[in-house]
Amino acid sequence: MNDQSQIAAAAAKDPENFALANCLRVLAIDAVNAANSGHPGAPMGMADAATVLFRKHLKFDASAPDWPDRDRFILSNGHASMLLYGLLHLTGYEDMTIDQIRNFRQWGAITAGHPEWGHAKGIETTTGPLGQGLATAVGMALAERALAAEFPGLVDHRTWVMLGDGCLQEGIGQEAISLAGHLGLGKLNVLYDDNNITIDGPTSVSFSEDVPARLAACGWHVISCDGHDAKALDAAMAEAKAETSRPSLIAMKTTIGFGSPNRAGTAKAHGAPLGEEEAVLAKAALGWTEAPFDIPADLAASWHEIGARGTKERQAWEAKLKASERGATFNARIAGDLPDNYADTVTAARKALFETPQKVATRKASQLALEKLAAAVPAMIGGSADLTGSNLTRVDAVDSQFTAEQPGRYIGYGVREFGMAAAMNGLALHGGFKPYGGTFLVFSDYARNAIRLSALMGLGVTYVMTHDSIGLGEDGPTHQPIEHLASLRAIPNLYVFRPADAVETLEAWDIALRSSKTPSLMALSRQNVPQLREAGSENLTERGGYVIREFGMSRDVTLLATGTEVSLAIEAAKALNVQGYGVAVVSMPCWELFDAQSEVYREEVLGSAPRIAIEAALPFGWTRYVDREADVIGMPGFGASAPAERLYAEFGITAEAIKVHAKALVAK
Amino acid sequence: MNDQSQIAAAAAKDPENFALANCLRVLAIDAVNAANSGHPGAPMGMADAATVLFRKHLKFDASAPDWPDRDRFILSNGHASMLLYGLLHLTGYEDMTIDQIRNFRQWGAITAGHPEWGHAKGIETTTGPLGQGLATAVGMALAERALAAEFPGLVDHRTWVMLGDGCLQEGIGQEAISLAGHLGLGKLNVLYDDNNITIDGPTSVSFSEDVPARLAACGWHVISCDGHDAKALDAAMAEAKAETSRPSLIAMKTTIGFGSPNRAGTAKAHGAPLGEEEAVLAKAALGWTEAPFDIPADLAASWHEIGARGTKERQAWEAKLKASERGATFNARIAGDLPDNYADTVTAARKALFETPQKVATRKASQLALEKLAAAVPAMIGGSADLTGSNLTRVDAVDSQFTAEQPGRYIGYGVREFGMAAAMNGLALHGGFKPYGGTFLVFSDYARNAIRLSALMGLGVTYVMTHDSIGLGEDGPTHQPIEHLASLRAIPNLYVFRPADAVETLEAWDIALRSSKTPSLMALSRQNVPQLREAGSENLTERGGYVIREFGMSRDVTLLATGTEVSLAIEAAKALNVQGYGVAVVSMPCWELFDAQSEVYREEVLGSAPRIAIEAALPFGWTRYVDREADVIGMPGFGASAPAERLYAEFGITAEAIKVHAKALVAK
Repeated sequence: MNDQSQIAAAAAKDPENFALANCLRVLAIDAVNAANSGHPGAPMGMADAATVLFRKHLKFDASAPDWPDRDRFILSNGHASMLLYGLLHLTGYEDMTIDQIRNFRQWGAITAGHPEWGHAKGIETTTGPLGQGLATAVGMALAERALAAEFPGLVDHRTWVMLGDGCLQEGIGQEAISLAGHLGLGKLNVLYDDNNITIDGPTSVSFSEDVPARLAACGWHVISCDGHDAKALDAAMAEAKAETSRPSLIAMKTTIGFGSPNRAGTAKAHGAPLGEEEAVLAKAALGWTEAPFDIPADLAASWHEIGARGTKERQAWEAKLKASERGATFNARIAGDLPDNYADTVTAARKALFETPQKVATRKASQLALEKLAAAVPAMIGGSADLTGSNLTRVDAVDSQFTAEQPGRYIGYGVREFGMAAAMNGLALHGGFKPYGGTFLVFSDYARNAIRLSALMGLGVTYVMTHDSIGLGEDGPTHQPIEHLASLRAIPNLYVFRPADAVETLEAWDIALRSSKTPSLMALSRQNVPQLREAGSENLTERGGYVIREFGMSRDVTLLATGTEVSLAIEAAKALNVQGYGVAVVSMPCWELFDAQSEVYREEVLGSAPRIAIEAALPFGWTRYVDREADVIGMPGFGASAPAERLYAEFGITAEAIKVHAKALVAK
Repeated sequence: MNDQSQIAAAAAKDPENFALANCLRVLAIDAVNAANSGHPGAPMGMADAATVLFRKHLKFDASAPDWPDRDRFILSNGHASMLLYGLLHLTGYEDMTIDQIRNFRQWGAITAGHPEWGHAKGIETTTGPLGQGLATAVGMALAERALAAEFPGLVDHRTWVMLGDGCLQEGIGQEAISLAGHLGLGKLNVLYDDNNITIDGPTSVSFSEDVPARLAACGWHVISCDGHDAKALDAAMAEAKAETSRPSLIAMKTTIGFGSPNRAGTAKAHGAPLGEEEAVLAKAALGWTEAPFDIPADLAASWHEIGARGTKERQAWEAKLKASERGATFNARIAGDLPDNYADTVTAARKALFETPQKVATRKASQLALEKLAAAVPAMIGGSADLTGSNLTRVDAVDSQFTAEQPGRYIGYGVREFGMAAAMNGLALHGGFKPYGGTFLVFSDYARNAIRLSALMGLGVTYVMTHDSIGLGEDGPTHQPIEHLASLRAIPNLYVFRPADAVETLEAWDIALRSSKTPSLMALSRQNVPQLREAGSENLTERGGYVIREFGMSRDVTLLATGTEVSLAIEAAKALNVQGYGVAVVSMPCWELFDAQSEVYREEVLGSAPRIAIEAALPFGWTRYVDREADVIGMPGFGASAPAERLYAEFGITAEAIKVHAKALVAK
């Protein structure tokens, strides 16, 4: 399949491109060999295409990696990380030194096994979990289009994606493909590394569909070409750029491990080092004579020139930005700054709640908050996975549908929770946007790994997850989240908010919008709750937990509760107090924030009296705050289909049950 | 869109079918109105097709719902549950009484908001989470084909699926479509309710792809027809049945809420009751004059005849089964019985480990166990989401690839974790199989909602999740599961096993294979561990937790650990004992099983001395057994990319750290 004649053919088509691509190939070989782990095959196979892209088409400037109008380059098959690191090193990204390449996959290096956003400039998103790079790129392309409409003349760039079979097999890949086709994302260009190999062997083991036909059916512009023919690749990329109303797929027939005499075209090239011996053979086959990690000066110089290709264009853009009267606004948007009137908006919304208390579901309270906040914060861009009327995510300020014809501030993501979550990551990563999107809390499962990536990258993304307990009622067990609060609280660096009333909901939104390094997830109710907070200027939700009511002079028992169960706890506390008990009720809208408070504060809030927790979910995790899971009034297991009140009664989540338990606990 | 002439046209095409379908429509109208919640639109739109299917094509016998050779009927768009309940009631499934229909979505009724497997015969799987019904059906079709090859003459049935746009928008839908096309599942027939409506409005909001072309690209046989034309539907279903080498899609153009003068063809018909007034109008439009929930005697009789259509065929099949020399074997397989030599096989495997202790990774230990068990248990059918060489799921006994040409005992699921998990549910639901499948533990995220459905339904499915901690090393944070043990332990009715050595791994497999009502998930290591257990005939893993080592006469401290950290705890305990401390080491391979033990046993194991937990994961949840999360030696957050030993050292998960912590704790 891959023999000397194929190599000779590639070299003959475009000797310069071939020589430059060999730099990428040998760096991948050497780094993977040095680490004794990694994936040499994909970088070797995609090197020719990547070289053409960086040489001829990608708009970038290695000396200014944060240039807002740069093209975005996403390596969706993140295991091919050495391709990206090689490109960044060779084109002159300052922090991607040869020492970093030599330390590929080692402690402290920025060259992790899979590209980690934040480790190095030029890594536009964290990839590795397959399919998500593509879906995140869709979000970036959405951001570009929306921002271009807001700031004409300042935004005009493309999103380039490289991916392999895995990204196309994952369901999220199709969600992204379908949405991109539907919204006609003409500036999204995808290079498909069609190498016929997956980890388990030839793709024929599990993958035989006609990918170009599938994408064409989804409204894509499809081009096929030889992935080792630089001229054909150049023409294909030019053709992709010329198409403006549809996303483009360039299906490149490639040979995995191109250049390796004994591994090329086989699964053996995928996920294991070539080893010393085969490395020698591969380099010989490629005509490479340098020592490991050495790049000949002329090729190094050519690559540096490529890295500087965009400098002039970038400088011209900066001059344009400077001259633009909207320059400052643009910079603030990219920086993620909130508008000047933001704090006043929150204060006014708070005041309005105190003046006219709202007895509403917290999903409705969220909508009330959004009405005010989205009007004040143009960076907010909303959406829902086809549950707009249930999530209440659409408000006046964002009441403009994002369509193929024109961008808007509301995205109909369709029944694609995972794709939505990844696209929101892309919107946030691109810059200029504070995305939020809704679905039912139980379907956070579908989006879970993208929520994890929001947290791992630390992005200002907000998940609006309604129908947060058995309180949703009749839809039954498949729709009732009972383990989801626990499983989401288990994700580090994620604010899981479960607000108790309209005030806490507003406060949670305020925190979410100010949070640029930690994503937020709102667990919101379908059923109404009374407004419990009536005055005060402090955002108490920011404390994570606080004493919302105190009855009696000294505490006999502390009731910890979240969300819709806080009012239930207060009701029980009142009844207990009538019987002579001192009771404190602690609202805990966000564990993560509470745990970040001082020990003194936490001890003061939790108190030394016996504690009971009340939450219409499994007790799992609550032993962080109470002695035993038996002291949690919650769900015993999966729910059932019935009206909400009946479910609360049947599962024993009632003020009466709290009262009985508290008395028994105090009597101990 | 839907006016009287459309109704008249449907009636004229096939008056009998139309009248029968109206029974389904009015039951849906009445039940949803009575519950004051639910989804009338889809049942009304799909009633004509469902009637044709049950009248003419579905092989079933309402009086014998467990007939193993029945066709399977899956309502993938589970919110249309009243269609299914109506069909079961009308065709005479014994437990689906009119009272159950009247109590739709009420406490204690078997007619939950979404179909719940186990509530009533005829519900072949739990649906509601979109896309999974189709993916589960793929598993059923796989089961049929594999079982037909094993028991020729006894197995020959089809799997019919009804679904809507949502199932096709969800990524898992595409995973199922691609896999079904690849494996040429000719007995899988899908009826697509193409009604142009989603919750958020017309599908044009988010979905504009050419579905038939997409499925054709994936190797499907595609037929289009009018979903209200009974003759056309009949012909389409016949055509689908005639195609044997490709799955068939029947794309039916339908009108949601068909019959409702003011709601038909709009999103308003989707998820809200029609209400009294519109119900009256709809019934008038359909020519329906009965009181709510009343079915005219002649139509009721016709439906009962439909329910008995398959009786003779079923009886003939039973006679054939009785006459077959393989009848008893077949029945045992369907019953899920383990073979007679099963216990001996486990005993022998155990003995072999004691004779030749294995210092291997627990993934390798799993493979060793599988070698023996899969050879003894023909019901076992394996696979992996394209990580066979990493998950070590392929062993000699299952070394026959399932292909389009012939079934086998090993399924290459491709990079489709979610589709794999749902297909395994289908394999288990079908009967005859004990499926297992592998991926990396971190990618349990991708499959999470199907794992949840395994647990909710209580199916004998086993997830082989390798690379279970930072111990996987260089692949880095995207591949390192740190919150996954906690988040999976939070799912009720799921055994999460993290075995410490080869013996515990074998024991976990033994439990998994004997467990028919609780799924199992194995968290297995990439790195080697010593064999800690050397003798004994009891399956101690079945205790969930047990004292694996005890040093000293009295306990000063108890070390709780799982998996690869158990040997670390033993090392620390030895060192502590040298310094005079009494230390018990408790291995806790399965929390769920431990919590099911008697209180006496649990207290004996946990002891009253201070406790420390050691697990290379977040401490979340461990406060169930230790006082404070500070007493957990685990991960502080996301991991990093480096060799495993380095990561353990850098994150402080070492015998030395355990020792220091234990001494401090005891000194308190």
